[in-house]
Amino acid sequence: MDTTKHAHISQQFNAELEDIRTRVLAMGGIVEKQVHDAVTSLVEGDVELAESVIVNDYQVNALEVAIDEECTQTLVRRQPAASDLRLIIAVIKTITDLERIGDQAEKVARMAIQLAESERPQNQYMEIRSIGRRAHDQLHQALDAFARMDIEVALAVAQEDTNIDQEYKGIIRQRITFMMEDPRKITTSLNVIWAARALERIGDHARNLSEYVIYLVRGKDVRHISLEQMEIEARKEE
Amino acid sequence: MDTTKHAHISQQFNAELEDIRTRVLAMGGIVEKQVHDAVTSLVEGDVELAESVIVNDYQVNALEVAIDEECTQTLVRRQPAASDLRLIIAVIKTITDLERIGDQAEKVARMAIQLAESERPQNQYMEIRSIGRRAHDQLHQALDAFARMDIEVALAVAQEDTNIDQEYKGIIRQRITFMMEDPRKITTSLNVIWAARALERIGDHARNLSEYVIYLVRGKDVRHISLEQMEIEARKEE
Repeated sequence: MDTTKHAHISQQFNAELEDIRTRVLAMGGIVEKQVHDAVTSLVEGDVELAESVIVNDYQVNALEVAIDEECTQTLVRRQPAASDLRLIIAVIKTITDLERIGDQAEKVARMAIQLAESERPQNQYMEIRSIGRRAHDQLHQALDAFARMDIEVALAVAQEDTNIDQEYKGIIRQRITFMMEDPRKITTSLNVIWAARALERIGDHARNLSEYVIYLVRGKDVRHISLEQMEIEARKEE
Repeated sequence: MDTTKHAHISQQFNAELEDIRTRVLAMGGIVEKQVHDAVTSLVEGDVELAESVIVNDYQVNALEVAIDEECTQTLVRRQPAASDLRLIIAVIKTITDLERIGDQAEKVARMAIQLAESERPQNQYMEIRSIGRRAHDQLHQALDAFARMDIEVALAVAQEDTNIDQEYKGIIRQRITFMMEDPRKITTSLNVIWAARALERIGDHARNLSEYVIYLVRGKDVRHISLEQMEIEARKEE
């Protein structure tokens, strides 16, 4: 193969990889909006917005299937090695977690519809607004880490996950107190707990996303290790 | 390359793929045992067994990382095409779901420890025994479908998932009634609900596993479509 032809193929390949990255970020943007809208629909009792979140979930699913297919095709055609292969494997995992974040957003929207039927609490679902903002920020940062291949941002996402877990546990404790004080609040409280749990799960998925970024940049699998160990591994040069 | 050498490499490659399949099934066996032990520990109030489930989760995590690494290495070295590539992609996804089933088993074990401190209910946690058996059977069948590349078994797993969902909803309804009748049962009931939810999630993951089997055998992505559509797609010849 002459050099010009080789350069041409390599350029095409780079364009393909860039296209995959762009599509993942587009999918991420839609999922982010779904999370944002789901939380807003619950906090503001906006049933119409909640219904639009449920309807739009198909877009997220369709993108997962399409990007997955594109990754498989690229593996077959290009047989990439080293960092290009890592990118494709990281993308295959990333879109699975993004799709599941979409499912959690849909769950929050379903709870929003249930809750819209009951009396609004005095605190206006402040606790869901708070944990929802955290979950959304985590997801946003994880996508940012992916876009900029930024290890430090990825590490920050992993660390922040502990705070969401704490906040979630606080919501459960508070709701148990409410339910004990007034058993008529049990159904409503359970719906709030389900929504909080879905948002806490989004935090877990954002953490997974950030682990894939570290794998992508450093070539190291940092799952199932402590945060301290993850920092050491991520900051080592490859 | 002469034919003998080619045949030799191809033999080695087949051995590698067979090794990956065997390790996935070994991981599946451990995860199955974890689910079984977690349910038993809860139903029988066996704290020691529950603790062993929590401790053994690291084995599942370690296998996920090791098999993942083996898949990446095989992609780099062998650059497989068509059905071999599909096997590796299906395995990468399968082990992610198996690891998450392991996490759910650990959650059930944690609930077992919490519940062992409270008074045993008259029904001896019959509802957890029942949904637990279903979740375990689903997982077992999904692994069986993978081992035998059996489309019909995979379809049966996907269909059965609806029944677990129904059973789970029944448990929630019953527990809401209990909590309303006697607010002192709220904490215990929530622990039963968390355990039931973890088992219901295992059903979802088993369904994912069966979808990867259909992808593997038929080369078709059957996620996010109706059960009827899935049957039609899966039974079509490739």
